[in-house]
Amino acid sequence: MDHDDFRKLGHELVDWIAAYREGIEGYPVMSPVKPGDIRKAFAAAPPRRPEGLADIARELDAKVLPGITHWNHPSFFAYFPSNTSYASILADLVAAGLGAQGMSWQTSPAATEVEEVVMEWLRQMLGLSPAFTGVIHDTASTATLCALLCARERASGYGQNRGGLQGTATKLMVYASDQGHSSIEKAALLAGFGKVHLRLIETDADHALRLDLLNAAIQEDIALGRRPCAVVAAIGTTGTTALDPLKGIAELAAKYRFWLHVDAALAGTAMVLPECRWMWEGVEAADSVVLNPHKWMGTGFDLSAYFVRDPQHLIRVMSTNPSYLRTAQDDEVKNLRDWGIPLGRRFRALKLWFLLKDLGVEGLQARLRRDLANAQWLREQVDEAPDWERLAPVPLQTVCLRHMPKTMKDEPLLRAHNLAIAERVNNGGRAYLTPSVLKGRQMLRVSIGAEGTERRHVEALWKLLNEAAGR
Amino acid sequence: MDHDDFRKLGHELVDWIAAYREGIEGYPVMSPVKPGDIRKAFAAAPPRRPEGLADIARELDAKVLPGITHWNHPSFFAYFPSNTSYASILADLVAAGLGAQGMSWQTSPAATEVEEVVMEWLRQMLGLSPAFTGVIHDTASTATLCALLCARERASGYGQNRGGLQGTATKLMVYASDQGHSSIEKAALLAGFGKVHLRLIETDADHALRLDLLNAAIQEDIALGRRPCAVVAAIGTTGTTALDPLKGIAELAAKYRFWLHVDAALAGTAMVLPECRWMWEGVEAADSVVLNPHKWMGTGFDLSAYFVRDPQHLIRVMSTNPSYLRTAQDDEVKNLRDWGIPLGRRFRALKLWFLLKDLGVEGLQARLRRDLANAQWLREQVDEAPDWERLAPVPLQTVCLRHMPKTMKDEPLLRAHNLAIAERVNNGGRAYLTPSVLKGRQMLRVSIGAEGTERRHVEALWKLLNEAAGR
Repeated sequence: MDHDDFRKLGHELVDWIAAYREGIEGYPVMSPVKPGDIRKAFAAAPPRRPEGLADIARELDAKVLPGITHWNHPSFFAYFPSNTSYASILADLVAAGLGAQGMSWQTSPAATEVEEVVMEWLRQMLGLSPAFTGVIHDTASTATLCALLCARERASGYGQNRGGLQGTATKLMVYASDQGHSSIEKAALLAGFGKVHLRLIETDADHALRLDLLNAAIQEDIALGRRPCAVVAAIGTTGTTALDPLKGIAELAAKYRFWLHVDAALAGTAMVLPECRWMWEGVEAADSVVLNPHKWMGTGFDLSAYFVRDPQHLIRVMSTNPSYLRTAQDDEVKNLRDWGIPLGRRFRALKLWFLLKDLGVEGLQARLRRDLANAQWLREQVDEAPDWERLAPVPLQTVCLRHMPKTMKDEPLLRAHNLAIAERVNNGGRAYLTPSVLKGRQMLRVSIGAEGTERRHVEALWKLLNEAAGR
Repeated sequence: MDHDDFRKLGHELVDWIAAYREGIEGYPVMSPVKPGDIRKAFAAAPPRRPEGLADIARELDAKVLPGITHWNHPSFFAYFPSNTSYASILADLVAAGLGAQGMSWQTSPAATEVEEVVMEWLRQMLGLSPAFTGVIHDTASTATLCALLCARERASGYGQNRGGLQGTATKLMVYASDQGHSSIEKAALLAGFGKVHLRLIETDADHALRLDLLNAAIQEDIALGRRPCAVVAAIGTTGTTALDPLKGIAELAAKYRFWLHVDAALAGTAMVLPECRWMWEGVEAADSVVLNPHKWMGTGFDLSAYFVRDPQHLIRVMSTNPSYLRTAQDDEVKNLRDWGIPLGRRFRALKLWFLLKDLGVEGLQARLRRDLANAQWLREQVDEAPDWERLAPVPLQTVCLRHMPKTMKDEPLLRAHNLAIAERVNNGGRAYLTPSVLKGRQMLRVSIGAEGTERRHVEALWKLLNEAAGR
């Protein structure tokens, strides 16, 4: 492909994307294809001869679009908002065009330094103190794994440089609530702690970790000769955006010297609003914090922000320094390969720069406040409707509800009834939400915050839910 | 930003990228900026008000381009080729525009199924048997970590579901050559094995792992009651593209039942050429293989291909199955979140599809053969020049050399002399290579294979090297 072909195809695909976004409300939110449908549209073997890309827009229409679930649809209420703003798309285009690889400072100083700039901006925007330093990871799952690895190495005095976990006498313990994200258990298992050394603490009526039970578990483990190594506190659990009692956990951390990791993957974005910061009071005592600008904030996936109090410790755990990676500037600069698991690094910082430049902090704040207000509106409808039950507080943008006709008291029946509602809504194509189970109760989880979601979309969802419930 | 703004800016940035690529030879290959230069060009705080992106191309010119080391420059000979072809840039643009998140099949069936298609194509292209199934990871570092985690869990009978490594009596051992990539040590340490349970085996005169010493180490460990858990064989070491004796290692694997992971991060791409496949004879016995299409092949970073023989084992190690991630199709489809560490997944498969459609397998083969021939040309020049020494065989596209004037026999002097040559070449801006140390000898490492690199660029490099050496 020569430069002019690229110009022509590039313009065509930019227009294709704009047309897709402009018409996005015309698509069913959740892809209606059946397993195998997309695969069948492709040849079984790779093309031998060059085909060129002249027909790629038509191929995308025919072979790919039917298999897309439209995360940027204004009626996407499933999982979490994963906004890919226009600004972010442009940044990804530029990052790909530059093809820079930022594993070391020298391999593209701009990739490292723009990341330093935007992580510093983000720190200020969240109201975190300068004690924190940020670095971009791919996902919160990876960041949480890094946090538990750092916890393990601090507790063991860098045991990885000796016998690793295979050399330890004292068992290291990890704690989180039973509403914590699945990535916490995954991280604890991958880091080698073992399932019996992970304790998932019960939660209260609001689905937040019970501090008394955490305290009791720690006491019990210490009495058994085990060592509390890390607590992962969720600010905004995945299920219901419950807020673990961070301040109390921080006091325990000060007393027992375990690693405190704050998982604010979704909710961290809300801290751009000063009025939300009470939700993570105590965060300044954390050793590490993760939040995903690629969720509600508007930078396309993947861009997870990992903030740490002690970058030197992170580097000591993650660093490798073979001769082929050493450069003349190593003593003066950050080599971000030493701040996470992968060696190579894309130029993801551009996405946050473009987004913030385009929107400004005030523009972002206005959008977040709109979403919070939309969630409160839906909460009010649920609370006022006699046949609907709300299953959790709504501090943020997620509303957890179920339909509960007066005549239906049996949990299995309620479960089937609400799953049927979800199926009707999702298969209808006009909205998409996540059915999930909360402490044995089948709920419908409505996560608000796609960039295009206005009040009218939430109103339409409420109407759909009621229709699907047979009202 | 509205749809028309996006169209306008999108076209402008496509043109900006084309102009950048068209004029890429005009830039110094290695960025000449000093630490802090880029950071200083940005405000200390994020923009409060929306600024829009109307001036973004000018901002990129002024603030970012000076800090780019140009990986796609035809005279980029450092590290490894990291080609971001035009086809791949277009695919990244489309992936960003769709904003699809492929953690589960249902969250965008096309993201999962196109990945299945292109991994199957790639398997065929590499001459791997259908016993292997491929999945996209971000980097070889992460894939190698997954391999060692899978090795750990197979050897321990899924110990992660019990006490993890904290519950083991028998010490699990990992082996690689002392020329293996730094990510192997990093992975072994992060997986909790501990440095004393990692043995880096000495290499032969060609810098390949010595099978006799590996065998002896295994015997010794077994005699001490330890258990051989995994061997990482390098097909193409990072330093010199040395080829570990895979067939012999595979025989040991059959005997001692350790996990055999093949790290072919760079060299794997060469297996698209049938005439190169002798280099990894024995690969069919591997439990896992990693190669990076984001290196020499031409898909932009990141796209690492991880092939495994037993996907069910990988899933069992990596899977989490909370209720909010369950979908109706779970029994019929792949949910690729369970095939690696991160939960969320970008639509990276588009890059490989676009690239292969554009080039065809034959187009790719022609480019790879061109690069191999260029490396042989440079090898010949080095071999014929009395003052230059070649430090390793050249099976692929990397040439390791040093300047050794007859009057200079002292290693410290040779080291300073060759470092000075690298500095002159790299700071001169007309080419970029990696100085590295090989078994105590300072070498200049020339890695050939940027998409734009023709014979004339290699000839120019040879001239530059000779000028820098003072000939």
